[in-house]
Amino acid sequence: MPSFSDAFRKELLTLFRWRRDVRHFRADPVPPDLLLWLLDVASLAPSVGLSEPWRFVIVEDPIRREAVRANFSACNAEALACQDSGRAALYARLKLAGLDEAPCHLAVFAEPDPQQGHGLGRRTMPETAVYSALMAVHTLWLTARSVGLGLGWVSILDPAVIAAVLKVPNNWILVGYFCLGYPQEERDAPELESLGWECRRDVTVSIIRR
Amino acid sequence: MPSFSDAFRKELLTLFRWRRDVRHFRADPVPPDLLLWLLDVASLAPSVGLSEPWRFVIVEDPIRREAVRANFSACNAEALACQDSGRAALYARLKLAGLDEAPCHLAVFAEPDPQQGHGLGRRTMPETAVYSALMAVHTLWLTARSVGLGLGWVSILDPAVIAAVLKVPNNWILVGYFCLGYPQEERDAPELESLGWECRRDVTVSIIRR
Repeated sequence: MPSFSDAFRKELLTLFRWRRDVRHFRADPVPPDLLLWLLDVASLAPSVGLSEPWRFVIVEDPIRREAVRANFSACNAEALACQDSGRAALYARLKLAGLDEAPCHLAVFAEPDPQQGHGLGRRTMPETAVYSALMAVHTLWLTARSVGLGLGWVSILDPAVIAAVLKVPNNWILVGYFCLGYPQEERDAPELESLGWECRRDVTVSIIRR
Repeated sequence: MPSFSDAFRKELLTLFRWRRDVRHFRADPVPPDLLLWLLDVASLAPSVGLSEPWRFVIVEDPIRREAVRANFSACNAEALACQDSGRAALYARLKLAGLDEAPCHLAVFAEPDPQQGHGLGRRTMPETAVYSALMAVHTLWLTARSVGLGLGWVSILDPAVIAAVLKVPNNWILVGYFCLGYPQEERDAPELESLGWECRRDVTVSIIRR
């Protein structure tokens, strides 16, 4: 029965503090076995009713990758056009995806109504299937960082387009599209903070008692 | 710039393997400072546009707790009634929540349209606000386990009832209701597996290439 040491907890906090949403990648490839190991570790995540509804799509086809890139560009241009005039210039300077350089592209979907798990825990909150896939993403993210890899989450995409580009089953729900690779640099502060887009708040503003 | 040791990675895997959805708690209280520290660590989670949309509700009022318990009982009775005849007896034997014994009740919500973050990353996938709150939940879960605490996720609840019982702002979205406390026992396998409800599969069944 494991108990964790102070030294481990200290490093775990370091991992949380240095985990980043990475958008600047080196070209070095991610060894295929390492990727499969990461997905195996990710599947240790909790899932509602033990349904394991995460679905991992390793995107290798250059034509599909280009279609994803094009969708990002289109969605990002629209998002820029919708910015307040006071923020548009800053928005335009942000690098919001590493789709060009990242050696590995991974789309994560959820099967919203899995047979596995026999529906347990999903009757009143069916969204817990998607939530389970999110737990797998976060597990993968932390594990990746622990081996020196960086993950970048691309949400500036049209989920329907991405599902069509990747030809996944109709009912799968896109949780996120991720870039994976070795980061150009390591940081303990979010780039959005360093570049003046937003800053973190004290957690006490997010706590209420009832 | 931190790099992580093999020893740390090994313990991290142990943490993933021994993190459990706990339904059997000891009565020992969770020190209030420890709970606040856990929430502080949870807020190191990634969030879309650095919007930090997690909202933590520490549920202390015995009357509200009783209302949550009653809602669980009602929802669980309905879920039992909907089971196939072949599974109903097994379902009835499962203990699916530790609401009676857990010393600490925590509801986690997401603010779906936070000012913070200035909308970045949420234009085509607004659900990423909820997803960010899920990342905080998983961060809290792992951290709790690293200090010997157990977390149990209760999803057999009506989210609208819970939001009303807790008198939270109308637009907040319930992500989950959690029991926190010291577990009666530690396990490296899910209780749903040990009791024969479901078993885990090899991750390769959840991977496709495109």
